[in-house]
Amino acid sequence: MSKNLLPFLFAILSLNCLAQNEIKEDSITLKKIYKTSLLNGKSYAWLDHLSNQIGARLSGSVNAQKAVEWGEKELKELGIDKVWLQSVMVPKWTRGVTEFAFIETEPGKTTNVPICALGGSVPTPIGGIKASIVEVQGIDDLKKLGSEKITGKIVFFNRPMQADLIETFKAYGGCVDQRYSGAAEASKFGAIGVIVRSMNLRLDDFPHTGSMSYGDLSDMDKIPAAAISTNGADLLSSILKLNPKIKFHMNMNCRTWKDVESFNVIGQITGSEYPNEYMVVGGHLDSWDLGDGSHDDGAGVVQSMEVLRLFKEIGYKPKRSIRVVLFMNEENGLRGGKKYAKVAKNKGENHVFALESDAGGFTPRGFSFDCDDANFKQVEGWKSLFEPYLIHYFAKGGSGADIGPLKKDGIVLAGLRPDSQRYFDYHHAKNDTFDAVNKRELELGAATMASLVYLFDKYGVK
Amino acid sequence: MSKNLLPFLFAILSLNCLAQNEIKEDSITLKKIYKTSLLNGKSYAWLDHLSNQIGARLSGSVNAQKAVEWGEKELKELGIDKVWLQSVMVPKWTRGVTEFAFIETEPGKTTNVPICALGGSVPTPIGGIKASIVEVQGIDDLKKLGSEKITGKIVFFNRPMQADLIETFKAYGGCVDQRYSGAAEASKFGAIGVIVRSMNLRLDDFPHTGSMSYGDLSDMDKIPAAAISTNGADLLSSILKLNPKIKFHMNMNCRTWKDVESFNVIGQITGSEYPNEYMVVGGHLDSWDLGDGSHDDGAGVVQSMEVLRLFKEIGYKPKRSIRVVLFMNEENGLRGGKKYAKVAKNKGENHVFALESDAGGFTPRGFSFDCDDANFKQVEGWKSLFEPYLIHYFAKGGSGADIGPLKKDGIVLAGLRPDSQRYFDYHHAKNDTFDAVNKRELELGAATMASLVYLFDKYGVK
Repeated sequence: MSKNLLPFLFAILSLNCLAQNEIKEDSITLKKIYKTSLLNGKSYAWLDHLSNQIGARLSGSVNAQKAVEWGEKELKELGIDKVWLQSVMVPKWTRGVTEFAFIETEPGKTTNVPICALGGSVPTPIGGIKASIVEVQGIDDLKKLGSEKITGKIVFFNRPMQADLIETFKAYGGCVDQRYSGAAEASKFGAIGVIVRSMNLRLDDFPHTGSMSYGDLSDMDKIPAAAISTNGADLLSSILKLNPKIKFHMNMNCRTWKDVESFNVIGQITGSEYPNEYMVVGGHLDSWDLGDGSHDDGAGVVQSMEVLRLFKEIGYKPKRSIRVVLFMNEENGLRGGKKYAKVAKNKGENHVFALESDAGGFTPRGFSFDCDDANFKQVEGWKSLFEPYLIHYFAKGGSGADIGPLKKDGIVLAGLRPDSQRYFDYHHAKNDTFDAVNKRELELGAATMASLVYLFDKYGVK
Repeated sequence: MSKNLLPFLFAILSLNCLAQNEIKEDSITLKKIYKTSLLNGKSYAWLDHLSNQIGARLSGSVNAQKAVEWGEKELKELGIDKVWLQSVMVPKWTRGVTEFAFIETEPGKTTNVPICALGGSVPTPIGGIKASIVEVQGIDDLKKLGSEKITGKIVFFNRPMQADLIETFKAYGGCVDQRYSGAAEASKFGAIGVIVRSMNLRLDDFPHTGSMSYGDLSDMDKIPAAAISTNGADLLSSILKLNPKIKFHMNMNCRTWKDVESFNVIGQITGSEYPNEYMVVGGHLDSWDLGDGSHDDGAGVVQSMEVLRLFKEIGYKPKRSIRVVLFMNEENGLRGGKKYAKVAKNKGENHVFALESDAGGFTPRGFSFDCDDANFKQVEGWKSLFEPYLIHYFAKGGSGADIGPLKKDGIVLAGLRPDSQRYFDYHHAKNDTFDAVNKRELELGAATMASLVYLFDKYGVK
């Protein structure tokens, strides 16, 4: 061997040795994080309070305000460096007296079906509306049918989620246009109301709400829109096949009020080396009004809080400033996410990383990333650290709605990806409640998030 | 380039091309399997019948016989090559009138706690037993305490499952000696009864039964053994700390009868190329008597049946003979598994592969293998085929209890590994019911099993 190569070889060997030590240290830290979350975690007790003592917390509601106060209080009790509220104006929409609907096969012969108003819908006139139904598989069908066949009728969007897609969020993405834009589009063809099949892969009796928009329709053209349970949708469709002349009656009492003030809740551990580099971990504090929002997104809220608590608990002092942000109004406006990003930009705060948990409190499978190749390659180098925790999924893709507005060159945006098979059984429905969340699964998610934040804090963003 | 190398190069290139084509074909077949299972599966409807129309089916019970008849009938309806019953003598143990227990803090002042007899336990004398409690963390503690402190008392085994183990089956493995051998060991020190903390990671009110053995104790030395719910165990432990003199009363009416005849249910698609090479896919048909055995192991039964149905449905004709075996008596004797292996051996049947699903009907994560390195390497080569279905876990380890007796050189034994976080919430308890199984998760498991069987059938065992 040439003597000239020796120093080079030593350098490589010692680098390799260093790298080995780093991996060992990281592996020990991850073990501590998981162990603490599973044996001495606080996420489940927090979720119990948020779900069972506060409950549903739609933007602008008394409960949403209670949740803000609770979040601030709990973060302050962690003894982190800074906790504050960030004011944001949010929409206020209320469901009013519970809606109802029935199918009238002949005068006086009726069958009830479970519906719920979509968030943002106008109400029916007092006494409800009654009309013939026209069933479609999607927005494209409206044009094919034309105004003649739609005017004066209720349009029934009945395209189901595609069950053979393994990732259920993709199946959701392939259907949700009916819910979001169905009413606006159907109105243009003279429809007087809209019924949308619930975004649920399971056949059951829960109608699933969610946001909708009238686009630029004038108030006069806005028509009421509701979701019908999957069983209800199948029943309605069967009855329509037997007798296309049946009438559908729906009665809704929802209302949109003036915007009200609400808050993002923010807590910070200030970085020891790079205090001006910010890393965000968050979920959204608001929920729909039907269940108690345990999966969507109580889980993400308490897991994000737990990340900071775990760091305190294991004595890890981050180099960068880590912020937990409990975003307000993801469900029907995204005002909290937009406000946070706007303030950050105005203040010139250098955000380098953001991670959101908003896909349910189920067993974590990994993360999706919205980042450049260099950072994704870095993440792939960490795979073996996650394997002992059965975390295998690292893919490029979306991150989270609330952190989306932070997007810019160089930032790493990430989303926790829990097992998604059951998520849409509960999403935006009355059964999204505390009992549907498993303690261990929730805790594993929190630990998985803390592990990723730890690694990005330690090694930085490329 | 030397001309001599050209033929060699061509050979490599065409091999590579062949390999690419094979991968493409396999990928198409797996897609068909998953799609058929999710869109047109039968596993969930089968499980509905087995769980809700038949229900709990402990070996030797009327329901176990009903399950045998149902399994035979359903397999025959598949139109596969051969369906038959394999006779096997099984133990018959009955719970009798529901057991009960209470803590007596002072005469007349009692608190009920939920218990259930362990499978195989002797009953208490009529009227029950009442005695002081001695709490231990495991069998080793018995020797430390000695006969003096144990004689005449009820021993309370209270070592919890280790919550920071990610794989919950490992936590189960670390605790189950208390349940299986606790009574036999405590009896040697003069205990008159045994209470065991339920093998459950969750705090709740369900006692979890399971098998136990008295080893070679004489009938006179057998003492009654029951499980107590995790909440009950924590309560009992707290009260004991306040007042070690409290009495515990337990009343059990279980009984062991003479062995009775039962059956493994077997169906076969005969191989087109290697009919004398047998591949088994199975689960166990018996269950405990408390819930309806949906996860343990109704799920494994219907998934195994579904493997053969999926092959018929997609028109795949296996090269090797594929057998579905619905084993009888896994829970308290393993007689079905032993009998199947014995008959196979006596007949000189060449079994090359066996796969069991007996870890619940949750989202499949992968497989564990009990096989040699060459076969495991072959499996690792298939990883990328499974990735689109979020199947990432391929590890050496156990397979399944029923197929264990088939073990010999060269055979590949495999176990489906579903997500295990919730499994012990339900295992052997009253809440192991149909509603705890998610349709998609069950169907994904069946498709994952069919995919592995397909690959081993196509490429053979090394």
